Amino acid sequence: MPVNLVAPDGQFLFPVAGLRIGIAQAGVRKVGRKDLCVMLLDEGTHVAGVFTQNRFCAAPVQVCREHLADGQGIRAILINTGNANAGTGSDGIARAKFSCRELAQRVGVNPAQVLPFSTGVIMESLPVDRIVASLDAAVSDAKEDNWLNAAQAIMTTDTLPKATSRKLSIGGRTVTVTGISKGAGMIRPNMATMLGYVATDACIAPEVLQALARPVADQSFNRITIDGDTSTNDSFLLIATNKAGNACITSIDTDEARILQDAVIGIAQTLAHAIVRDGEGATKFIAIRVDGGRDTMECQKVAYAIAHSPLVKTAFFASDPNLGRILAAVGYAGVDDLDQTRIDLFLDDVHVATAGGRNPAYREEDGQRVMKQSEITVRVVLGRGTASDTVWTCDLSHDYVTINADYRS
Amino acid sequence: MPVNLVAPDGQFLFPVAGLRIGIAQAGVRKVGRKDLCVMLLDEGTHVAGVFTQNRFCAAPVQVCREHLADGQGIRAILINTGNANAGTGSDGIARAKFSCRELAQRVGVNPAQVLPFSTGVIMESLPVDRIVASLDAAVSDAKEDNWLNAAQAIMTTDTLPKATSRKLSIGGRTVTVTGISKGAGMIRPNMATMLGYVATDACIAPEVLQALARPVADQSFNRITIDGDTSTNDSFLLIATNKAGNACITSIDTDEARILQDAVIGIAQTLAHAIVRDGEGATKFIAIRVDGGRDTMECQKVAYAIAHSPLVKTAFFASDPNLGRILAAVGYAGVDDLDQTRIDLFLDDVHVATAGGRNPAYREEDGQRVMKQSEITVRVVLGRGTASDTVWTCDLSHDYVTINADYRS
Repeated sequence: MPVNLVAPDGQFLFPVAGLRIGIAQAGVRKVGRKDLCVMLLDEGTHVAGVFTQNRFCAAPVQVCREHLADGQGIRAILINTGNANAGTGSDGIARAKFSCRELAQRVGVNPAQVLPFSTGVIMESLPVDRIVASLDAAVSDAKEDNWLNAAQAIMTTDTLPKATSRKLSIGGRTVTVTGISKGAGMIRPNMATMLGYVATDACIAPEVLQALARPVADQSFNRITIDGDTSTNDSFLLIATNKAGNACITSIDTDEARILQDAVIGIAQTLAHAIVRDGEGATKFIAIRVDGGRDTMECQKVAYAIAHSPLVKTAFFASDPNLGRILAAVGYAGVDDLDQTRIDLFLDDVHVATAGGRNPAYREEDGQRVMKQSEITVRVVLGRGTASDTVWTCDLSHDYVTINADYRS
Repeated sequence: MPVNLVAPDGQFLFPVAGLRIGIAQAGVRKVGRKDLCVMLLDEGTHVAGVFTQNRFCAAPVQVCREHLADGQGIRAILINTGNANAGTGSDGIARAKFSCRELAQRVGVNPAQVLPFSTGVIMESLPVDRIVASLDAAVSDAKEDNWLNAAQAIMTTDTLPKATSRKLSIGGRTVTVTGISKGAGMIRPNMATMLGYVATDACIAPEVLQALARPVADQSFNRITIDGDTSTNDSFLLIATNKAGNACITSIDTDEARILQDAVIGIAQTLAHAIVRDGEGATKFIAIRVDGGRDTMECQKVAYAIAHSPLVKTAFFASDPNLGRILAAVGYAGVDDLDQTRIDLFLDDVHVATAGGRNPAYREEDGQRVMKQSEITVRVVLGRGTASDTVWTCDLSHDYVTINADYRS
């Protein structure tokens, strides 16, 4: 059961002018489900991408990087579920490029103007024949008002589609930002990938768009974790179609850029949090905030150590205020000169530990009260400086083991 | 159920001359179980220690470091289960020192000649009154032939005691090496600690003993992982009583030192492997060997990334040759310039992946055959150099979640 997550209402997913979406059933792995999505982008659209840091990155990720670097301007996006085309060597690259070529031909652009995305099983050949056979259907389905179908088509074992949208005003013009994502809890059978697409009709210079993509990812998709397994295919794409008629944003140091960035971060965080809320077996949504660090990096290290500790995660699942486990994770996070006597720990408003020991005023029933909630903020204060960072995660339940121990067939 | 582990036979746990062990029931947390162990060391004994790298190290670890640095010669060891005396601030240090003082007084040594060890719940006050009240009973129980009782007394939720022993010949003299350990899977309620004690009656200079302790730990206790949670209390002690009558080993670059080191590593590996075999919920014992690295450190990084991946661990639990999960873990291990096209993967003798992709000759039924075994070796070849490293771990099962999600009371 996802944690406080509901399916999006299609009527509040606003179309982004200049971006049409088409869906098809290619039967990549299973028949009778939407598993192919194309996005067709009008000329003048700019695209920026952030991809997995996994050195075993999948073939489509390698092709995306190559095509973005090529600089011809991206005009089409091709997404399939059911097969990740990862761990497939040079043959995998050839298959990804072949599918780009086939789509390019149908929409009258160059192959290097197509970005491919795949999510699903690892180490199996991508069935390009079935994908290509469904391209005509997907292209002819293309329309601007199709975001909910796109959110459904990129799902693997997500239990709910993930999409959100908003309108805002920039320089007197109404601008739309709409996005979709799919789950990161690596799933039977390795339906591994986090995919996120956020599009706006705002006009924004390509170098500003690129400069926005990284901080947006770093405050959203790069700050969530289900199980610490960085997928081979994780990708986030930021798309600007240049249709809103706003005065084009040509510098990141403008009010307009900041307004747009805030909106895009808001959308991306909602999509990222939705992934955690729908994490495999999740029963709780947990924010881990680390304050008082010397720099953001050490705060992030500590936050991830807590977020990845199976002991901490099972304690959340059990609603057990077994808070020594959190302190232990702080201790092994890799901050070498950490002074334990300066550390404070809070669970929401409850002050659990102070100066590295149990807070004398702490009562177990207060910790218990917070641990029973479905949304919890853990706050660690390191007492070393003024930097902060936050990551979001979920608990580790029996269902996580059941889902991931299930045989692939 | 532990994986291919049986309880040790007391008659094959050879006494170490000069080291007497006494046991008592102090009722630290639960009544009616052996939870207190003292080891009394004859004058002339040397002791070397390796302790947790957790910056949130427990009070007894801090006191051990202080007393070892003091250099008066260690004459007594005091171990309690039921309470880890961790996350207890300055009061915890005071309580650990108080218990040392009380034992020192009873055996006629200085407080700084006593090393304290605790394992059990975190963030609760050590009940020193109950410990001190049982010291007389423990001291009067002290005898050389008491290793099996010691192995039992240091257990927390270990399902079996862990002990092993051997005799060897050094310079024509018979030397004994005997050791005990307790589990590292951090356990309800945070029975966190890995403890290991290996004693020999060999004569060995203190600086050589100290030089031995680190490589022994690095090839045994420092290469196992259940869930990646480094405890606040992990400790390994190497003890030499100087009673065997061998010509004293005064250099690490001698045949005698190497013979002794091999024996001690063998004992320590058996004890470390026993911890993994008895890991919480373990159903499989898995060796992860990484070859072809530029240095040991990067091999270790890759091995631990695999060993800590919940996805890999659940696949082992399911006997599912879902081997893309292993490649994905290799990819995010943090070897930044890794070239995926040079990587090979083996499961025992089965060549699964080559040049970063599926080995064309690999058949799923071969992977399946190996995955069904209770003991499995994963071998990754990085193709970058000649360094190797191995870590040992277990799978992640439903029982792990059950054990760790159980409420503490």
